[in-house]
Parts: sequence; C-alpha cells; structure tokens
Amino acid sequence: MPQRIHEGEDILLYLDRKRTYLIKVEEGKSFHTHKGFIQLDELIGKDYGTRIASSANVEFVALKPTLRDYVLKIRRRTQITYPKDIALILMFSNAGPGSQIVESGTGAGALTTAIAYHIRPTGHVYTYEIRPEFIELAEKNLERAGVSEYVTIKNKDVTEGIDETEMDAVLLDLATPWLVIPHAYKALGGSGLLVSFSPTIDQVQKTAEALKESGFVDIQTIECLMRGMQTERGKTRPQTLMTAHTGYITHARKAL
Amino acid sequence: MPQRIHEGEDILLYLDRKRTYLIKVEEGKSFHTHKGFIQLDELIGKDYGTRIASSANVEFVALKPTLRDYVLKIRRRTQITYPKDIALILMFSNAGPGSQIVESGTGAGALTTAIAYHIRPTGHVYTYEIRPEFIELAEKNLERAGVSEYVTIKNKDVTEGIDETEMDAVLLDLATPWLVIPHAYKALGGSGLLVSFSPTIDQVQKTAEALKESGFVDIQTIECLMRGMQTERGKTRPQTLMTAHTGYITHARKAL
Amino acid sequence: MPQRIHEGEDILLYLDRKRTYLIKVEEGKSFHTHKGFIQLDELIGKDYGTRIASSANVEFVALKPTLRDYVLKIRRRTQITYPKDIALILMFSNAGPGSQIVESGTGAGALTTAIAYHIRPTGHVYTYEIRPEFIELAEKNLERAGVSEYVTIKNKDVTEGIDETEMDAVLLDLATPWLVIPHAYKALGGSGLLVSFSPTIDQVQKTAEALKESGFVDIQTIECLMRGMQTERGKTRPQTLMTAHTGYITHARKAL
Amino acid sequence: MPQRIHEGEDILLYLDRKRTYLIKVEEGKSFHTHKGFIQLDELIGKDYGTRIASSANVEFVALKPTLRDYVLKIRRRTQITYPKDIALILMFSNAGPGSQIVESGTGAGALTTAIAYHIRPTGHVYTYEIRPEFIELAEKNLERAGVSEYVTIKNKDVTEGIDETEMDAVLLDLATPWLVIPHAYKALGGSGLLVSFSPTIDQVQKTAEALKESGFVDIQTIECLMRGMQTERGKTRPQTLMTAHTGYITHARKAL
Repeated sequence: MPQRIHEGEDILLYLDRKRTYLIKVEEGKSFHTHKGFIQLDELIGKDYGTRIASSANVEFVALKPTLRDYVLKIRRRTQITYPKDIALILMFSNAGPGSQIVESGTGAGALTTAIAYHIRPTGHVYTYEIRPEFIELAEKNLERAGVSEYVTIKNKDVTEGIDETEMDAVLLDLATPWLVIPHAYKALGGSGLLVSFSPTIDQVQKTAEALKESGFVDIQTIECLMRGMQTERGKTRPQTLMTAHTGYITHARKAL
Repeated sequence: MPQRIHEGEDILLYLDRKRTYLIKVEEGKSFHTHKGFIQLDELIGKDYGTRIASSANVEFVALKPTLRDYVLKIRRRTQITYPKDIALILMFSNAGPGSQIVESGTGAGALTTAIAYHIRPTGHVYTYEIRPEFIELAEKNLERAGVSEYVTIKNKDVTEGIDETEMDAVLLDLATPWLVIPHAYKALGGSGLLVSFSPTIDQVQKTAEALKESGFVDIQTIECLMRGMQTERGKTRPQTLMTAHTGYITHARKAL
Repeated sequence: MPQRIHEGEDILLYLDRKRTYLIKVEEGKSFHTHKGFIQLDELIGKDYGTRIASSANVEFVALKPTLRDYVLKIRRRTQITYPKDIALILMFSNAGPGSQIVESGTGAGALTTAIAYHIRPTGHVYTYEIRPEFIELAEKNLERAGVSEYVTIKNKDVTEGIDETEMDAVLLDLATPWLVIPHAYKALGGSGLLVSFSPTIDQVQKTAEALKESGFVDIQTIECLMRGMQTERGKTRPQTLMTAHTGYITHARKAL
Repeated sequence: MPQRIHEGEDILLYLDRKRTYLIKVEEGKSFHTHKGFIQLDELIGKDYGTRIASSANVEFVALKPTLRDYVLKIRRRTQITYPKDIALILMFSNAGPGSQIVESGTGAGALTTAIAYHIRPTGHVYTYEIRPEFIELAEKNLERAGVSEYVTIKNKDVTEGIDETEMDAVLLDLATPWLVIPHAYKALGGSGLLVSFSPTIDQVQKTAEALKESGFVDIQTIECLMRGMQTERGKTRPQTLMTAHTGYITHARKAL
C-alpha cells in the first residue's frame, strides 16, 4: 500500500544533492526557496516521492526522510556527527531491536537518534549530558525524529558514574573518555561492548590504556575515510575535496 | 540480570584479535586450539565474558557473538562482505525495525543476516539468489545467526523481475546491477531507497546511468576506506597493510 | 659560506603556513601586507632565513624559495599541479641531471619548471603547447624560477607528432593523452619512460589501452593521497579537510 | 643515438610487473628464471628495450634500470624505503644538481642513492651511520647504482653532532630524530631545509616540538597514501590491498 503524506509529517524536499530541506507539512503553509515557493497543502494525500513544481516552475521531489536525513539535518551547536561514523559505531555496538545502551555526551542528539531508531521498540537509550542547553536541543531533535519514547536523557556528569547496569553497550563521544572507562565497565553486562569516538590520537592513546587497565579485551581502533565519486561517463573520478578526518573509533569488549 | 551461557548457544572464544573462534557450546564437547583445548561444559551457566583457561593454561574469553562476528565468521564460498560496507549499506538503506527489504544476490547471506538483524521483529527480507548451492549455505548461516524467520530466500533470477511491491529498500550486490534497476523501481514504494554495491567502476557507471533513466533522484556513489591504528604509546601509528578496495556503494531514491 | 640575499633575487616572505609571499627584493621597494609593510632594502646583504619585523612590528622570515615554492606560487590560469604529483611524476620519469625530456601540455609551466630544475645543467626539456597565451605565461614562470635556458617551448600540437627522438621520457598532462601515445613511442629511445597525468578514469582507461597497443610494457596506474597532520601534543590528529583527488598517474616503458 | 647495452652494465629484466630482475650483463653468463634461462651475451650490443626469448621461449624485455628500480631492488637488511616517500622527501628537501646534503641514518642506502642521483655532478651527500654492517651494504648499493663518488659515508653517531655547516638540507630517517634537531640547525645554512621520516606519531610529536624549540619555521607533517589502479576496461578498480602506512614526513625551514 503506497505511503501517503499526512498533515504534520516531515518531508525532505529535494532539489538536488546540495539543496534538500527537511520540513513539516502543515496546512496553509508554504515553503520559500530561491527557486520559488511550494504550497505544502498540495502535498497532503500525495504519495511520498511525488514531484512538485514550485511557483517558479522548478521541480522538487517530496521524499520521506530517512534516519540519515535526520542525522544530517539535525539542529546543532556542535560539530556534525557524520553518518559514516554513526554507521560504524552502530555496527561496533551491535545496536539492534531490544538493545539497552548508555551514551554520553548527548550533544544535539545525532547519535542518540540513530541508536534509538535501531533499538526500537523494546530497547532503550540512556544518554548523559551535563550542559542543559544541549539537553533542550536534543529533546527537540529526538522529538522531530519520532524516537523520544525510547530515550532517557540524564542531566548528569558521566565521569562521576553511570546509574545503569547490565547494559549491552556504552557509547562515548566526549572530551575525556578515559575517565568514564571504569564506570562503563561496571555499567556493562559480561561481554558488553564499549565504543568511543575521539578526534585526537592523544585521546585514543589514553582511552586504549584505560581499557586495558579496566579488564576490556579485543581493543581496536580504526578510522574511516569516505570519498565521493562522480560517475558520469567520460568524467568519472573521485570528488575533489573530502573530509580528511572526523575521528577515531575505538572498540572493546568487557571480559569478567 | 547477568546473561548466562546456555547449552546450545554460540560463543566467540577470544584469544587475541587475530584468533577468535565462533563455536556452539555443547555438553561433553571440547574445543581444540594450538594453545590447548577448552572443556565447553565448564562454560555452561557462566556469564558471557568469563575468562577460561585452556588445558595448556592459556587464557581465553567466552564472548557473546555480535552481528559483526557472525558477518566476519560467515561460512562462505564468495568474497567476504566487509562489516564497514554492511554498516554503510544499512545506513543508506534506512533499514530499521519494520523495514520491508528486497536483496540480491544472497550469496552466503552476510548482508542478509545484517539486514534481518535490524528489521526484526516486524520487518522482512526477501532475498533473490539463482545459485542453489548458495541458498543452502545462506540458510545455514541465517539459522546460525538466529534470524531465519525474518527472511524469505527465493531461488529466482532477479534480473527477470521482483515479485514484491511497496518495498522500503532494494539492495543489490551482484555482477549486473544495472539490469535490475527497472525492476527495483517497480518494487519500491514512493521515495524508496536503492543501494548497490559493486567492485568496479564500469559497474558503477552503468548503474548510475540506469538509475537516471529509471526516474531515481539523489544518486550518489561513495567508497569507504577503513584503516586500523596501533594505539600503544610510543608505538602509535596506522597499521602497515590495509584493504585498499572492497567496492563502491551507490545510493538513490525513487521519485514518482 | 652563508648565503646572502642580493638585490634582484626572490625571497619567500613567511608569516605563517597559510601566509607566504614570493617576491623579488628590489632597492627602494617595500612590500605591503595586512600586518604592516616590509622595507625590502633592509634585507639586502642579510642572510637567507633572517627574521625581519614589519612596520606593525610583526615578525616575518625571509626564506630562500625552493622549487616547491615556485610550483605552489606559479602564476597560472589552469588548475594547480600539486607538488605531490610532480614529485611522483619526477620519480616515475627518472628525470635527473642530463635527462632529455618531452612534455605536453606546458600550461603555466609548473611541471616544466620542476623537470628543468632536475635535468640541469646538461639535460633539456622540450615542451609542447598549442595555446599562445599559456606559452607567454610559462615563459615568465620559467624565467622567474631561473630555468629558462634548459627549456624549449614549442607552439605545436603534440597530437600531430613529436619532433624529438631518443628521448629519455615523455610526460603528458593534457586532455587526450591517448592520441599522443604513438608519437611518444617514436620519440622515446629504447626503454624510454612514459608518464601521463589525468584526472578522470575514462582518460586512464583509454591511455592504458593505447599504451598496450603501442608496444609499451610495465604499465601501471596509481593515485596518491596526501594528508596533513596536526602534531601539537594533546591535539594530534589528521587535518580536517584534504584534496581527495588531483589525478591518476600512469607510467609505462618502451619495449622495442 | 640509440642506447646500446654494454658488457658490465645493469639491465632490468622484465617479465611482468611482479617479476623483474636487476642483473649485470656479463659475457658468458646466463640468468636462470622459472621461465627458462636467458643468455646474457646475446644482449650485448642490443638496444635497451630489446625483447628477448628465454630458453623456454618466454618473452622478457631488457630495460634500462631507473633510479626507482635501484631503490626497489636495493640489497637491504632494513625495511624498504618506498619510492613514494623518497619522491616526497626529495621534493621537500629541494635536492637538485649542486645541493649539499646531510643524511642519517644511511641504512642500506636507498635514500642516499636517490639524493646522490639528483645532486650530481656538483653536489654532495654526507651520510651518517653508526652500524658498520650497514656502511658496507650501503657502499655496495651506491656502487651498483653508480653514484658512490657523490657520497661520503661517515661511521659516526649523528646524535652527537654534525661536522658539516652551511648545508642546504638535512634528511633524517632514524629512531630518535628529535635528538638530532639542534645539530641539524647548526649544520644548515640560513633558510636550510630539514626533512624527517618517522613511522610513529610519538616520534613526530617529539620532532615537531624539537623543531619549534630550535628556531625552525614552516613546520609541517604529512603522510602519503599511494594506491594502485587496475585499468582494464570492464574491470577498472583500485587494487585490493595497499600499504596503509610507511611513515610521516615532517618538513621545516631554518630561520635565523
């Protein structure tokens, strides 16, 4: 059965790869772009994927937003968390339906959104954040992505301890992950997974040392480089610029 | 509540990063390594993550296998599908609980296992494979990973058509993806996602062209390079060798 | 014996990595920057490497320009040729004192300058360029780098033939290298080296095919990714952005 | 005038990219391969680039060895120094005809050979090595490549001082480059170049710190990843495996 666009739902309005807009479809509203405006009412009841002309007669497509779109379009004050890193963190954390996961820091909630999406409907995410302004921001972002009910945000300093126990995974994306490692060890169940994301090598060295001291095994650090390709025949080549570095991902497992 | 190892369950027996063994815990069985043997009975009732000494007094850890372990340890006749690629394909396909997904070819079932893990318990994977010997292999691998019930394997040639409609995503990992693009278009719901994995640039060019002709938008191709890091202080450096290329991932969305 | 700065010589005025200026030291002249101006007379007779304060009391260093500086600061209308690619092209072409080398196209003369620098004083570069405006530009750049006498610029279409014979190497950086391969074969001595630089894979495919057909052996194509590192302790990490692609380098040798 | 193969000269006997042999042409000698033997006498007086059939009727090509061949085929006890790194070190060191350069350690002489090749005939290389067994090996390798006369090998510990002054560049490839930085500063002329090659990040951090303290400017660290491409049409793709890391190259200039 085709999926129709309903009032109050989000769409990703697509013009081209560089110009996409994540907006809510509301009656009586229009969306203005430099290529004319779109009457959002017209989309209600249409199928996702519908092409629609703007007032300037430029064609847009009303796409259904994916998790990746919510991650890329997140309202944020921090650096972006890249979908490539989120994808790998999810793989290393084994996050799937039913997983119980602790995360810190919450930031704008990009990784939180992604985990929550995957542990639905029976799992849960407990996310620690000390900065109140980020908690508010994350709440809005989780709300928009429709995953709030799977997340508990805690206004606590994770370097002082983790309340939960028998967790499946602990995910760290904060300045001093090594200070959290002993708490993460206690919070994890046997064979539980720790995944830490850090931009600098100094952080990675300290984290790897803390993991060894705390009884973790299978400690690995990787980095992932993603490069876009132009594929047009006769012009096929890698893109000219790329993000050369986002961060290192360190992964370990709790041995008893 | 700690997770105990039960008879009949799998463990990942860990010696070090290069030596891990995915085995089933069975009463009366022992597992032989070149570092002595392990009495598997001794593990029954213990917590996952337990350390256990072999007959040669070498310490192993009985870890709980993750999806990534099942992917890496899959019984196969084909080339490995790398966890990094699976992670990105999952991200691009938006696969999550409830997703309806078509995949081809099945191969040994590595990607199938990963999708099935993530679409549980309400989603489903329909996977097409023409080679009967691979179907048998994939069935065993899905069974072992405990995700068989979420998968329908079809012994059909996907280049001749796809039975399903209103799918959320179609994932292609076969020699001639461009031949499947028109069928994939029909199989997808509006705004549905297509993700194709191909080792060669020639395949990518043809696939990108077929996608354009068939009405897809937001066509992108990327490649992902993953590099391991040694993190020991005083010896911190990237690993010496790496996999330089596995394949290109092409992603697109169906516009109506 | 220390090297003194003389009137009429070039210096590289260094403020920091992103702000360097290649200028000629002339009596009575001053150089204006947004950090104040520098009296160039003051530098005459000083050693290269001298620190000098601007009128705003900001410290600059008067460095001796290297080949790499001339390449990076070349006056150009075309895309930059990256020092990393020039370095590898030089290695693959075996260019050293005495080498006889044909090059095309000249462009702004970046690669020409680099080859001329290395084949001095007994070698020679014959460089083909069809666009008169580039010839004029290249002449100025070669003049500035002090290597004009080792270079003959030819206003000819290299796809129609190469005048020289028994060359040690032919270097190609133009849109249709495959059209030049048969001419290059004739121009090279036995075991002579061909090196071609192309941004797209389509060019590389055609060039590799032409090389095979023309009797070349040892045909290889590589690409080189260069990534900068921040090295400050506590902040050590790869740079955030990098040039993801400049071009592919194809190398071959003439068999008789 | 075609270049003929003379008795006593080296050739690179080429079968395919993975099977090349750097051998001396001597009268009465034959060279045995698993594809039959080659009568080397037959090559004397022939042009470089000549194809020759082995006793098993397999075609080889008698190529003229390049600097890169001598580097790749060097007789060594140490890790290989990669041509890509040598190419970049040469670029950063500005080595060209007439350059005066100090290098340490000599090792098997790969980098020494490359510098000597480029500074001919008026420049000179002073290379420091404490291990007598390497000095002997390097002497043989320099002799074979025909560049001995441009090199002075010194059996001295470079961490205790450098004899030369007013050098154009100092190149370091040893375990503790930071200990040599103050000596390198004294050995260099104003604006002189320092280039250091190190496998680990810890070495790079210490070296960068020593450079800052010693009065160097324009301190940069880079790494270079080189990836081969298969270019056959229909099978075009990057190679499967690559060297993921050789070392970091740090570059700086002496300010007075």
